[in-house]
Amino acid sequence: MDATAEGPLAEYLRLIGVPPIAPATSPFDPGYDPVTVESHLAQSHHLISILKISMACWIIADEGATRAKIAAARKHGVRTVTGGGPFEVAVAQGQLPAYLDLCAEMGVDRIECGEGFTDMPLPPADVAQMAGERGLEIQFELGKKHGGAFTDRITDELIEQGRRWLDVGAMELVVEARESAKGVGLFDDAGNFNAALAERFVEAFGMETVMFEAPNKPSQFALLNHFGRDVHICNVRLEELLRVEIYRRGLHSDAFAHENLRPPRPGATEQAPT
Amino acid sequence: MDATAEGPLAEYLRLIGVPPIAPATSPFDPGYDPVTVESHLAQSHHLISILKISMACWIIADEGATRAKIAAARKHGVRTVTGGGPFEVAVAQGQLPAYLDLCAEMGVDRIECGEGFTDMPLPPADVAQMAGERGLEIQFELGKKHGGAFTDRITDELIEQGRRWLDVGAMELVVEARESAKGVGLFDDAGNFNAALAERFVEAFGMETVMFEAPNKPSQFALLNHFGRDVHICNVRLEELLRVEIYRRGLHSDAFAHENLRPPRPGATEQAPT
Amino acid sequence: MDATAEGPLAEYLRLIGVPPIAPATSPFDPGYDPVTVESHLAQSHHLISILKISMACWIIADEGATRAKIAAARKHGVRTVTGGGPFEVAVAQGQLPAYLDLCAEMGVDRIECGEGFTDMPLPPADVAQMAGERGLEIQFELGKKHGGAFTDRITDELIEQGRRWLDVGAMELVVEARESAKGVGLFDDAGNFNAALAERFVEAFGMETVMFEAPNKPSQFALLNHFGRDVHICNVRLEELLRVEIYRRGLHSDAFAHENLRPPRPGATEQAPT
Repeated sequence: MDATAEGPLAEYLRLIGVPPIAPATSPFDPGYDPVTVESHLAQSHHLISILKISMACWIIADEGATRAKIAAARKHGVRTVTGGGPFEVAVAQGQLPAYLDLCAEMGVDRIECGEGFTDMPLPPADVAQMAGERGLEIQFELGKKHGGAFTDRITDELIEQGRRWLDVGAMELVVEARESAKGVGLFDDAGNFNAALAERFVEAFGMETVMFEAPNKPSQFALLNHFGRDVHICNVRLEELLRVEIYRRGLHSDAFAHENLRPPRPGATEQAPT
Repeated sequence: MDATAEGPLAEYLRLIGVPPIAPATSPFDPGYDPVTVESHLAQSHHLISILKISMACWIIADEGATRAKIAAARKHGVRTVTGGGPFEVAVAQGQLPAYLDLCAEMGVDRIECGEGFTDMPLPPADVAQMAGERGLEIQFELGKKHGGAFTDRITDELIEQGRRWLDVGAMELVVEARESAKGVGLFDDAGNFNAALAERFVEAFGMETVMFEAPNKPSQFALLNHFGRDVHICNVRLEELLRVEIYRRGLHSDAFAHENLRPPRPGATEQAPT
Repeated sequence: MDATAEGPLAEYLRLIGVPPIAPATSPFDPGYDPVTVESHLAQSHHLISILKISMACWIIADEGATRAKIAAARKHGVRTVTGGGPFEVAVAQGQLPAYLDLCAEMGVDRIECGEGFTDMPLPPADVAQMAGERGLEIQFELGKKHGGAFTDRITDELIEQGRRWLDVGAMELVVEARESAKGVGLFDDAGNFNAALAERFVEAFGMETVMFEAPNKPSQFALLNHFGRDVHICNVRLEELLRVEIYRRGLHSDAFAHENLRPPRPGATEQAPT
């Protein structure tokens, strides 16, 4: 899982007590240039669960640029997923088959489905079938983009909805937080994290199946502080990925005080001048 | 106008009803590295009206880096304009001829003139003549950087000033909003957009001739919501250009609800599993 | 010091009165991709006093990516320093010798020491000896990350601490401001700069030996406005480096009004059309 697992960096991480951690962050590309995206993949491939090619940016970009990003991901062993926005537009415009054809032709591995800003007339089973016929995995995004913070009742409904998508083969579920993590989903208007509601999603689906959107430092740190190093988060900007991952490993100055993140102190080792 | 107009992405955009849109955004380079700038140009050349090489950054950078940016723009068929800051400094320091020589020698296509933080003693006709002799186009920036939000009377004066610059051959006019779009130009201290004053600029000069600085998401969305997909905006950060352009095409989750941006729904198309 | 000192850009800077300025900014890499870092080094090598490879990001990154950054710095004649975070973690985990071995093996020139979020049991002389044995320079960071704004008494203690580190050979001292420059060090909760306390550090150590962290535009501009073009600042984001350096030279629209930054107006030069 980690190309550098044998070098001096990996050895040092073991020495200071950092445990092995499976890739648990899905960063996103909100419209960076292809060279930057590729260089981030070279740097952080071993830390990425799946790369999200976000929004409709990849559809209006130069085709060569979009293909370069997807090829770079493949080269570095990183899987790709398109964002939920263009899926919703495709459904609303009556062009879902063409959208799925396009995703398959461009070579992405997975699509995100959702009804964040539209209502979806299609049953999950139909979408899953159409995607499967084209070799595409699916994940589903839970939550409305303009619906404010979740209530208990909304959470009940979203958990039901998530189960329906898992039943038809969705690989993962995503909890909406937009770009702000304020006044949306698990975050109130001041950005405070509702840990009790977040726990309900983990209880319902398990830590391996639910991903929380964490688009900025406060939301990233809140999720890692609460759930510890195994929580799956997504919509992390590529240039912030390493910061998130050192926080996850307890190596950030704000994480080192947290018992559930700080690496255990290794056995007594002398520090006298060598 | 669009190198990808023949590929599967262009075809899909037609299928979902996105109309052809001429390049109407002038992004800026506020000091990015040359490789990132070139890769953005490769990705978005067909969406760029003209690239602004901003402030005096290009003058203090390594000469090779500055030349690389301008060469990359030319390679991708994108025109370049230097920002208004170094023009004002050149005038204030009594070195305008040397500044124009430098711009011509470096290969930019156009200079921006203005009096945003200085007062300009030179008549527009003289500046236009000096620029023209060196093969440089000009555009003029309307508004003071430290003068606060526009009033009706300031707007009257700016429209008069804009006419004087158009009379001597300026290609476009730019409405100042700095980096904040708060407490400056068309934006009040809370960032609220003054649509009535903005309309006056469009009435006076036409949508093709006036560009509005829109340095952040709220100002970009406000301008596109009000004027629709044909408004010309500038000072967009390169990594935000694709987001602006999907908004312009109604493909962003916040734009899809706007009648003047959302692509028209294509004729009835079946969505049954294929 | 400046590879472009002989070209048309350097000549133009002399014409408009910009004095030669030694590199006085230490930008940091908070987790950018290696290609972007290298391209910034190509663009701005002559403006960088030393490049900080920040936090523990370089330790968890792909080893090839970390080595590429350090090699790029060397290629462009820029020295490198690791951040204080991993030093503190190494001490706390009882692995300082291994950390110093790693830094030496990776090829950095200097390490930053500090006790920003831990307490340091080791005497400065021991650390200096261990670093020196591995060919590593040291700099020390003054201030706590979670201790709020400095008081007079804290400043007294920090100046004493700084002297102890200079006595054992530290090359420079760094004044903490984190990523926010709010509620930390010289900045109060609103981000206001405490010039009187800042002066005390300059009086104690001299402008050449103390660097101020200035992670955002308000802190950068406040320091340059107060101290003028010779103040040493650090923790500047790479993509903001050129903006800081044009401000330092009085070429930014907000700096041109400051007598201590604006370049002196050259002798009378005609501006008549040529």
